[in-house]
Amino acid sequence: MSSVITLISDFGLQDTYVGVMKGIIATINPNIQIIDLNHQIPRQNIASARFCLLDTYGYFPKGTVYVAVVDPGVGSSRRGVAIAFEQGYLVGPDNGIFSGVLELSPPTKAVALTNPQYWLTSTPSTTFHGRDIFAPVAAHLASGVAIACLGEEIEPDSLVKLDLPQPQQQGDGILGLIQYVDVFGNLITNISGAMVKGKSWGVEVRGEIIPRVNTYSDTTSQELIALVGSHGWVEVAVNGGNAKAVLALDTGDAIKIKLLSQ
Amino acid sequence: MSSVITLISDFGLQDTYVGVMKGIIATINPNIQIIDLNHQIPRQNIASARFCLLDTYGYFPKGTVYVAVVDPGVGSSRRGVAIAFEQGYLVGPDNGIFSGVLELSPPTKAVALTNPQYWLTSTPSTTFHGRDIFAPVAAHLASGVAIACLGEEIEPDSLVKLDLPQPQQQGDGILGLIQYVDVFGNLITNISGAMVKGKSWGVEVRGEIIPRVNTYSDTTSQELIALVGSHGWVEVAVNGGNAKAVLALDTGDAIKIKLLSQ
Amino acid sequence: MSSVITLISDFGLQDTYVGVMKGIIATINPNIQIIDLNHQIPRQNIASARFCLLDTYGYFPKGTVYVAVVDPGVGSSRRGVAIAFEQGYLVGPDNGIFSGVLELSPPTKAVALTNPQYWLTSTPSTTFHGRDIFAPVAAHLASGVAIACLGEEIEPDSLVKLDLPQPQQQGDGILGLIQYVDVFGNLITNISGAMVKGKSWGVEVRGEIIPRVNTYSDTTSQELIALVGSHGWVEVAVNGGNAKAVLALDTGDAIKIKLLSQ
Repeated sequence: MSSVITLISDFGLQDTYVGVMKGIIATINPNIQIIDLNHQIPRQNIASARFCLLDTYGYFPKGTVYVAVVDPGVGSSRRGVAIAFEQGYLVGPDNGIFSGVLELSPPTKAVALTNPQYWLTSTPSTTFHGRDIFAPVAAHLASGVAIACLGEEIEPDSLVKLDLPQPQQQGDGILGLIQYVDVFGNLITNISGAMVKGKSWGVEVRGEIIPRVNTYSDTTSQELIALVGSHGWVEVAVNGGNAKAVLALDTGDAIKIKLLSQ
Repeated sequence: MSSVITLISDFGLQDTYVGVMKGIIATINPNIQIIDLNHQIPRQNIASARFCLLDTYGYFPKGTVYVAVVDPGVGSSRRGVAIAFEQGYLVGPDNGIFSGVLELSPPTKAVALTNPQYWLTSTPSTTFHGRDIFAPVAAHLASGVAIACLGEEIEPDSLVKLDLPQPQQQGDGILGLIQYVDVFGNLITNISGAMVKGKSWGVEVRGEIIPRVNTYSDTTSQELIALVGSHGWVEVAVNGGNAKAVLALDTGDAIKIKLLSQ
Repeated sequence: MSSVITLISDFGLQDTYVGVMKGIIATINPNIQIIDLNHQIPRQNIASARFCLLDTYGYFPKGTVYVAVVDPGVGSSRRGVAIAFEQGYLVGPDNGIFSGVLELSPPTKAVALTNPQYWLTSTPSTTFHGRDIFAPVAAHLASGVAIACLGEEIEPDSLVKLDLPQPQQQGDGILGLIQYVDVFGNLITNISGAMVKGKSWGVEVRGEIIPRVNTYSDTTSQELIALVGSHGWVEVAVNGGNAKAVLALDTGDAIKIKLLSQ
């Protein structure tokens, strides 16, 4: 069997936290392929990790186990969970980190990780469940252990959801927000390409309209542009520059799309 | 079959771009080993990626597929290409990024990536061909698909070249330039060790001669030194320090080797 | 056979040094799994690499080959070594980098890497033994070559040790030092959880007592806390913040645990 585990965390790569999780997985099953999705999520920023997961889970093989460790509540009574869905499995804290994926692809089964048989140790630390619980549980799942063995079944409806506002039609525009800022400083909104398909539009920031283009190569260097980006959402970018810095906008800030008469 | 794909890009590791390319490769063929060559190429800096590729391709197994995504022209009419050469295959934009490798090891066949059968989707985005075209094409190549299947054959001579000046003998010296600055701030010139072999020499910067040493351990901490480095080119370094910062020199700046009477 | 090589270095990820070592390993044996332990060790900081290794070696499969390249003496007469111990093998410079692991798990055999048959080239560079000696030697070890083949046997007692002070009982406290600062700015002391087990204690910094807690979730945001962390040592942390910055303390600084009357 050949299976994949992806890892996402706020651990960064300046330390051994990620390497240790990989060592534990390789010890349980050396044939698992481990793929880093992103370890530089802003610290404790569950919403950013939620976006990265919902934006990318479709690009991995069926049966992939997606481990997420952005876990400000570690050591508290927050549950650890494993969730089965069409594309594979989700493993991590029950803090809303998976709620974006699950809005797009509903859970088929969920368990609380209460069975210490699949942990690294029956006395896990209060600070690093990625090592002590999530990595070993994921390795066992990816090796064929049934999800039902990992702990008590829970109601999928009881899983924590992040309560994010949805985009709203308003007059001649659509009000949304910036749900993610990528490494280039591109501002990725929560307004999908489908919502503006076939329309003429631009993004309004402080009274100025940022024009919509089809591709970066239509533009000149350092120009502010709006486009439906590779993520499938309306983005604001600066060709060769950093829109976050130029506009002083960040995750969570409101953004308005202006629909233009054609 | 066991095969290797290497990835080089300017995507950084603070986002999911690299992880998504790996997921696509693993979906097509889970037995491919993926090795990161460098994802922190300065943004859109084709010359730096060109150097990293020519400097390292010899260290990978025969048959390796080298994917390069530093691609400021994505979405324009620039071609995507796959190129066969003695060591394996090159896959990426036709923008000169492979021209350093191909000066050392000539292409044996080249195709434009015009066959959508090997893409992720027949309607690729205009912004992320690493995901939509290059990663899936590379996975198919590494899995045994013939390069001729990937698209129309093109003349190797038609491939874009970066036009970089060659080092010149001049009086009692050799004029070259800094072709790369590594992570330690070492200044790597385009003057090869072979050009100074058996000679007595130093590097002249603003009238001062930086002495040539054989090894870092011959020097004291913070000393400016010149040596034939592990890359095989003349380098300027500061033992325990950063020559780029100390000398205020960077990629593209001229450098002069002074040949000394023996 | 399926085996693991871990890599630790001060090379960073902004260059191709790590990728090249992986290419060499894959060329010798494509079935080896390579796991990055940490490539952002502060430059030439042998003590930090020593801590990362002793802190994590237990999480990898038996037989793992641990390669370490923090190597300020490269090019000098310092030895390259391979060391067998209960958990697997250690490969790198003989500069004390392995002395923490070996205090916990003694060496069973050690050799100087004097046999060029297992190097990349019989004329290695004076600047990059990770590429020219350590990576190929590790790949051969992980592929079943006997350690005795790699070079002359040496006395384990002759291996270089880092001479670090041990924690001392003193009056109503324990004097120790900060042996590592992790990516979050948590200050990890050399005082083990076992030394304070069952006691009531806090950490004294400039006359103030930082209270001991069981878990981050017992605390409020930005609060200074002391705890036995996931590494098993007494740590000082700031919930959601950076203790190194808040306290202006760093690796090597003294730290005092105050034992409280119960």
